[in-house]
Amino acid sequence: MPEKVLVHSRFPRTMMKRFGERFDLMDTAGRPAAEVFPTVDLATVRAMITAGGRSLGGAVMDAFPSLGAIICYGTGYDGIDLEAARARNIVVGHSPGANASSVADIAITLMLAATRRLVVADNYVRSGDWAAAKPSPMMRPQAGMRGRRVGVYGMGEIGRKIAARAASFETEVGYFSRSRHDVPYQYFGSLEALSDWCSILMIAVRAGAETHRAVNADILRRLGADGYVINIARGSVIDEAALVAALADGTIAGAGLDVYAKEPHTPDALTASPNVVLTPHIGGHTLESHTAMQDCVIANLEAFFAGKPLAYPVS
Amino acid sequence: MPEKVLVHSRFPRTMMKRFGERFDLMDTAGRPAAEVFPTVDLATVRAMITAGGRSLGGAVMDAFPSLGAIICYGTGYDGIDLEAARARNIVVGHSPGANASSVADIAITLMLAATRRLVVADNYVRSGDWAAAKPSPMMRPQAGMRGRRVGVYGMGEIGRKIAARAASFETEVGYFSRSRHDVPYQYFGSLEALSDWCSILMIAVRAGAETHRAVNADILRRLGADGYVINIARGSVIDEAALVAALADGTIAGAGLDVYAKEPHTPDALTASPNVVLTPHIGGHTLESHTAMQDCVIANLEAFFAGKPLAYPVS
Repeated sequence: MPEKVLVHSRFPRTMMKRFGERFDLMDTAGRPAAEVFPTVDLATVRAMITAGGRSLGGAVMDAFPSLGAIICYGTGYDGIDLEAARARNIVVGHSPGANASSVADIAITLMLAATRRLVVADNYVRSGDWAAAKPSPMMRPQAGMRGRRVGVYGMGEIGRKIAARAASFETEVGYFSRSRHDVPYQYFGSLEALSDWCSILMIAVRAGAETHRAVNADILRRLGADGYVINIARGSVIDEAALVAALADGTIAGAGLDVYAKEPHTPDALTASPNVVLTPHIGGHTLESHTAMQDCVIANLEAFFAGKPLAYPVS
Repeated sequence: MPEKVLVHSRFPRTMMKRFGERFDLMDTAGRPAAEVFPTVDLATVRAMITAGGRSLGGAVMDAFPSLGAIICYGTGYDGIDLEAARARNIVVGHSPGANASSVADIAITLMLAATRRLVVADNYVRSGDWAAAKPSPMMRPQAGMRGRRVGVYGMGEIGRKIAARAASFETEVGYFSRSRHDVPYQYFGSLEALSDWCSILMIAVRAGAETHRAVNADILRRLGADGYVINIARGSVIDEAALVAALADGTIAGAGLDVYAKEPHTPDALTASPNVVLTPHIGGHTLESHTAMQDCVIANLEAFFAGKPLAYPVS
């Protein structure tokens, strides 16, 4: 008989297909489990799949007295109260690096699209304004990539892939992270120093208390009037209100965002701005990265049910 | 007294500013010169600045009996009848490579934006559909770049820069050009063979009789249903009607276009398609590439008026 696995977050059904072939899925579709399943069924749940960014604290864990494993679909696990899990002997797994290439690609896509004003340009063609030779201040030439200073905040697997891609555009690449890495990019000892140096800041740092709203009004001011912020990490790393203000008053030139403080909600000031490019948290959203993340989830669940250590534990 | 220079194409005034400081500009704003200036003035014109893609044949040259130099703003010179110029002892100059980085950047921007459906994604966020969790078949995961086969058609300066950038996305890169180059990419002996091999075709070839509509229905069919065409060269290299048909019936998945057969006009079938990303011929449209192209134009004009060979002649 297949093992029961609770699906704690709301995922598209297609993403769960391979899990359903191996496990007996109890899909909450993102609703509180107690509303969807009777308490007796919850009591038998030993493992769950969740999105790492979704809040999952001790109180939720307590609704599942047999819970032994929380498996995050994706790299992040910032929503999981790791202390609470440890206190309950619950192991936590994730999919490290499985989506790194895909996320790094969307970071570069947003960087190029924001600096070259791609969405505005596409609309300029589609609307007929180009054919009508309608003047458009937004379509004036902008600074390109060559010689530009790109700062990468965080030098994990995604940060390294972003840096390698950015360097191919004839840029200078620098980075700040807690520790210096063996990489061919200039190291800066603080986010402040990196932001003074670069005009494009790529956020690739793990979310957590240490990085909460680290990109604040002061950091944005340091980027300068030709500065851009690209965020593919987590919305919590940016002070979103400060970003909105910095875009409105020209403190920086623009932004490319895949993540937001309160997903799936985005401030009206952002959705109304022509200086930003916005994507709906699709960084890891490619066929091959879903396959790779699913491989990690399956390997984690199979190890857990076999009584072995997780294949990809959160350390 | 500054030398007279006729401006044959329509250029934004800001792009002509540096020329106006050195030369006595006669700006036609793209209209026939005889409509704007008296014949006696045209008779004294010895040099003109034009956009290389704009048609300029012997009949136009004959309106300027003193014409000795046609200077193209940009790399291309496909609009110039070189035979007719030679027959009249008119030298032709351009700005080789000045915009290569900028054009290669827009090629990669279009490649990433088309394959990851960036414009659709941006609209999904802005419209509120994401916040409303509205299902969108267009937002389903797509194939990413890693392991993808990218074919570059043309291995001049722009082609090489496109190839180097594309390779940084963990792709395989191949190319076809008239001759084999000393580059670390797989060479294919024909455009057909390249298109059979790759799923993304990057067009970076010079326009001309040899490449006219080279990317036709057969080539598009070879790319396959997950195929993309990116064109930053000239619209004439693609059979645009065949492209429209291939997009409509799913022969290929999408396209990213910066150039069109009849600029600034784009077929309605393209501007209505969600599978394409369209930009208004802005490949070379960055501050630093304009500066570099202007440097070339000025160097060409100064050499010509000094009685020397052009600094950047069309060879």
